[in-house]
Amino acid sequence: MRTQVKNAFYAQSGGVTSVINSSACGLIQTARENSNEISKVFAGKNGIIGALKEELIDTSLESDDTVAGLNSTPGGAFGSCRFKLGDPETNTELYQRLIDVFKAHNINYFFYNGGGDSQDTTNKIAKYSQSVGFPIKCIGIPKTVDNDLPVTDCCPGFGSVAKYVATSILEASLDVESMAATSTKVFILEVMGRHAGWIAAAAGLARENTGQPPHIILFPEIPFEKDKFISKVVETVKKYQFCSIVASEGIKYSNGKFLAEQGNHDAFGHAQLGGVAPTIAEIVKTNTGFKYHWAVSDYLQRSARHIASDTDVKQAYSVGKAALEFALEGKNAIMPIIRRISNSPYRWEVSYTDLSNVANIEKNLPQNYIDEEGYGITNNCREYMRPLIAGENYPSFSNGIPVYSKPMNQLVKRILNDDFSIG
Amino acid sequence: MRTQVKNAFYAQSGGVTSVINSSACGLIQTARENSNEISKVFAGKNGIIGALKEELIDTSLESDDTVAGLNSTPGGAFGSCRFKLGDPETNTELYQRLIDVFKAHNINYFFYNGGGDSQDTTNKIAKYSQSVGFPIKCIGIPKTVDNDLPVTDCCPGFGSVAKYVATSILEASLDVESMAATSTKVFILEVMGRHAGWIAAAAGLARENTGQPPHIILFPEIPFEKDKFISKVVETVKKYQFCSIVASEGIKYSNGKFLAEQGNHDAFGHAQLGGVAPTIAEIVKTNTGFKYHWAVSDYLQRSARHIASDTDVKQAYSVGKAALEFALEGKNAIMPIIRRISNSPYRWEVSYTDLSNVANIEKNLPQNYIDEEGYGITNNCREYMRPLIAGENYPSFSNGIPVYSKPMNQLVKRILNDDFSIG
Repeated sequence: MRTQVKNAFYAQSGGVTSVINSSACGLIQTARENSNEISKVFAGKNGIIGALKEELIDTSLESDDTVAGLNSTPGGAFGSCRFKLGDPETNTELYQRLIDVFKAHNINYFFYNGGGDSQDTTNKIAKYSQSVGFPIKCIGIPKTVDNDLPVTDCCPGFGSVAKYVATSILEASLDVESMAATSTKVFILEVMGRHAGWIAAAAGLARENTGQPPHIILFPEIPFEKDKFISKVVETVKKYQFCSIVASEGIKYSNGKFLAEQGNHDAFGHAQLGGVAPTIAEIVKTNTGFKYHWAVSDYLQRSARHIASDTDVKQAYSVGKAALEFALEGKNAIMPIIRRISNSPYRWEVSYTDLSNVANIEKNLPQNYIDEEGYGITNNCREYMRPLIAGENYPSFSNGIPVYSKPMNQLVKRILNDDFSIG
Repeated sequence: MRTQVKNAFYAQSGGVTSVINSSACGLIQTARENSNEISKVFAGKNGIIGALKEELIDTSLESDDTVAGLNSTPGGAFGSCRFKLGDPETNTELYQRLIDVFKAHNINYFFYNGGGDSQDTTNKIAKYSQSVGFPIKCIGIPKTVDNDLPVTDCCPGFGSVAKYVATSILEASLDVESMAATSTKVFILEVMGRHAGWIAAAAGLARENTGQPPHIILFPEIPFEKDKFISKVVETVKKYQFCSIVASEGIKYSNGKFLAEQGNHDAFGHAQLGGVAPTIAEIVKTNTGFKYHWAVSDYLQRSARHIASDTDVKQAYSVGKAALEFALEGKNAIMPIIRRISNSPYRWEVSYTDLSNVANIEKNLPQNYIDEEGYGITNNCREYMRPLIAGENYPSFSNGIPVYSKPMNQLVKRILNDDFSIG
């Protein structure tokens, strides 16, 4: 008698991106191609919470077209969450609950699509499941616009936000330059990235020659020095008539205080940032009198699937596909990674690394990516980033707006039939 | 002996758009095709100020490729300005200066690419030039993201910002929806539009069925009622787990006070607006406790050539082209307009109207474009707007970012050789 073919569980975690669904698409399509080895892919409704609450979306009910459409749909199609499982020692109940749900639904594969925290969780689930004698193949799938996962050359999600930011500052700078004679002279664009300047650095890709905008990039890695900054703004306006600035949400004074902390914290204890652009604008206004405009793109930058990087979409798809394939090969506690083979022409392949190499390690922006003055990027940085924003990958449009895939997200019939509180 | 072929003067005015250069392109290309009737097109460096300061850009020195590239380049390629000439009676010196410069450079055609204020100025120059016996053909070219010019069915510049806003709120809403279970439940996008809700209304195009985002549009036409708004947010989150909000920068309390006035005024005395999104976010935070995110797209929305509407690009080009043709036909003190022939299929043509019908008249968002509750748009509005955002018109890309045209902007040798102060 043949062993029953096992199911897989896939969940999206943390802040979503414009290409996280591409990873889902790669995984689900590859599972469908291997239906003799893998039965159904269940997706967690709102991420890992869906597993804990036994709210499993049956992706096998979605049409091939809907699944294919995920490859060009931003956001998290099955819902994501910010929820930390904690340690198995102190939160045994949560871990045991996962195992109970996985057992009940014949799930033998766990795929967790997220950033550093999620990779850590994936690793813990792998260990826990083994320790309780129900070993699950646990594969992390990299995702984060912050590009701060180690080992992998880059993180799916980053290339698209980088392309958005570089394109947006290029366009807005042309606008400001036109207005500078009598009106706006200073423009400030706030970008995401938390403690790392990866996204801010990407704006530097818009500058191909000295003097071109953005004239000032404010990195979280470089303590904000008000006087130096004001001098630079004044000098830039004198020289080029306008000054285009990109400010990372995570910039801090030398005493470690964020320029703009909203006072909220997420489930991981991270401070919710935002509002650094108006803060900088106020500094510009008070100290230079220049007319200014500011923009905060916030979620727009990480959901802008309409200007996604083709490289990024392909890599996001590939790590999803590879995750499934690695699992079928019997690999466990690993994460697919992007390995750069060459810069020019840009060539890459998918490889993998043990989750223990990834969990809770942040990859910082290398020091030699920021120029000496501290307001721009180096050619090393350009060389690294350019291929990541290369190529366009447009969604289809109908009635003038993009057509995005909307799965039905039908839940699997519950088996455990108890109300599990995740308090 | 043949009369010397005359030159033309073209200037960009006020806030620029992602397609104002398409109008420049249409005008210059058409002038080049009619070189037997029109000699050179001089562009004002930084708009009308360029004429006053005798800083005339010789566009004949630009290659055909550079001129063609203007059709996909945002911002104002020759520079714009916010500068009001005032009345010929009180500012005779300025008007006379224009005539002196036009005479010196054999300029017989004046093209002014701008909004309502600029159309007014164009009309005044037409009258003044006639009154002093140096009649210039004066043609206004419509441009404004605010869509508030009368007579014309729509304003070049609006369709593209409308497409940007509808696309962005669609994308960001998918993001928020994914995060809502444990994190962000309310998202606020601030959009431009000043006193008119045209741009805010365009966000409504992202909603095709009841319940879809954006759930709340805050129009400047509808006084902001805090309690009603808070109830609606709470009700929406209860029903759909998240609430996606679009707020016009121009929203006011019923006492007429703007929610977010920065305290600055432009050359026309208009208040500089901005920062309404964080204000709304604060209201949401204080009164509901929901986690929120907010975005202010500011210049990004009006310079986003990468997501321009094909309809808009074509119309912007056509009014530029038509302006030149109408001038050659001997028309004066007119503005090309877009006339809608049919909705479905959408058909339009270029016609024209006297500047006196346009100057200083604002076209408001029709009352029947806003739904009864005051937070959404009607099907009338959808029917009007949908064709305006239809079609994509992508720029070329190189190194992952758009390739935008950069004219040399060489100035014509000065003839008057005096320093005219416009202080």
